[in-house]
Amino acid sequence: AKGLVGPHAKPKRADIGSTNEGYAKFAFDWLGADAITLHPYLGKEALKPFFDRKDKGCIILCRTSNPGAGELQDLEVEGKPLYQIVAENAAKKWNTNNNCALVVGAPYPTALAIVRRIVGDMPILIPGIGAQGGDVEKTVRSGVDKSGKNAIINSSRGIIFATNGADFAQKAREEALKLKEEINKFR
Amino acid sequence: AKGLVGPHAKPKRADIGSTNEGYAKFAFDWLGADAITLHPYLGKEALKPFFDRKDKGCIILCRTSNPGAGELQDLEVEGKPLYQIVAENAAKKWNTNNNCALVVGAPYPTALAIVRRIVGDMPILIPGIGAQGGDVEKTVRSGVDKSGKNAIINSSRGIIFATNGADFAQKAREEALKLKEEINKFR
Repeated sequence: AKGLVGPHAKPKRADIGSTNEGYAKFAFDWLGADAITLHPYLGKEALKPFFDRKDKGCIILCRTSNPGAGELQDLEVEGKPLYQIVAENAAKKWNTNNNCALVVGAPYPTALAIVRRIVGDMPILIPGIGAQGGDVEKTVRSGVDKSGKNAIINSSRGIIFATNGADFAQKAREEALKLKEEINKFR
Repeated sequence: AKGLVGPHAKPKRADIGSTNEGYAKFAFDWLGADAITLHPYLGKEALKPFFDRKDKGCIILCRTSNPGAGELQDLEVEGKPLYQIVAENAAKKWNTNNNCALVVGAPYPTALAIVRRIVGDMPILIPGIGAQGGDVEKTVRSGVDKSGKNAIINSSRGIIFATNGADFAQKAREEALKLKEEINKFR
């Protein structure tokens, strides 16, 4: 999907279909967002107004980066953790317009590798590098597809809070460049 | 929780802890919302900034009212559907400040009765009456607690879209009163 990355991604949302139609219009048309992050809990039918927007990206929460993510996401369903079912449904049933991506947190490289195997070359948004403690090498090696691409590795606090000093812009740039080089080293 | 009902409830949200702190402040302090609807997928640890607000209500999605709700919510976990695990975790682990409620859709009165048995007198927000086809008698009988209370039965489109005519305000009032009387008949 074009323009999946960037500063225009919107807060996570998901509601019943008729309400989601409004959210989709608001995020994509009013705010001009390129992509939106979505909760999977209501299922494909409710998320359809987002998936139907072929020109926009739908980034579905799969295995999140927070320490307590496993409480529901690791529950065993049909012999495997729930997050794997989400990845399978997204890859096989939801991504008919080829505009879906998944969120898998960097602190869980094993989950990242498993999801990558399930979804082929679907983009994976990977938060949790930097402040949340994710390891860059493990993240890159587990997260990229066969061509070394489609891993959107995100560091927020590690970059924007690099310093509290007057040189915050320079320091943020340095941290961003440092991370970029580190990522490319392991691709 | 005081003020759980009302026009000030905010769109469904849930994110990692540090971001949720911001969402909680924004919804509760800046917008002055009395309650917020939350996705359970990230678990208790991520939702803590909301649960910590003893003066505010946290309404957690459990078995939603949309037709495709079962895709994930009915998946079998430990011999029962996922939505029951959400209800159990909410009742036993998440509701330490006695400010939680659950969302269970009126179109699924059996799920409603099961959740009511799990959560005792915790409030249940019940959307899906009216436009979504929920039956009032089944909803009330399955949804209220032992004292005939704590079921927040919601009709949106059935009331606000009662007519497109100039008398929309009067018609909306009539529909609201009609529903109120019907609910009270079965309590």
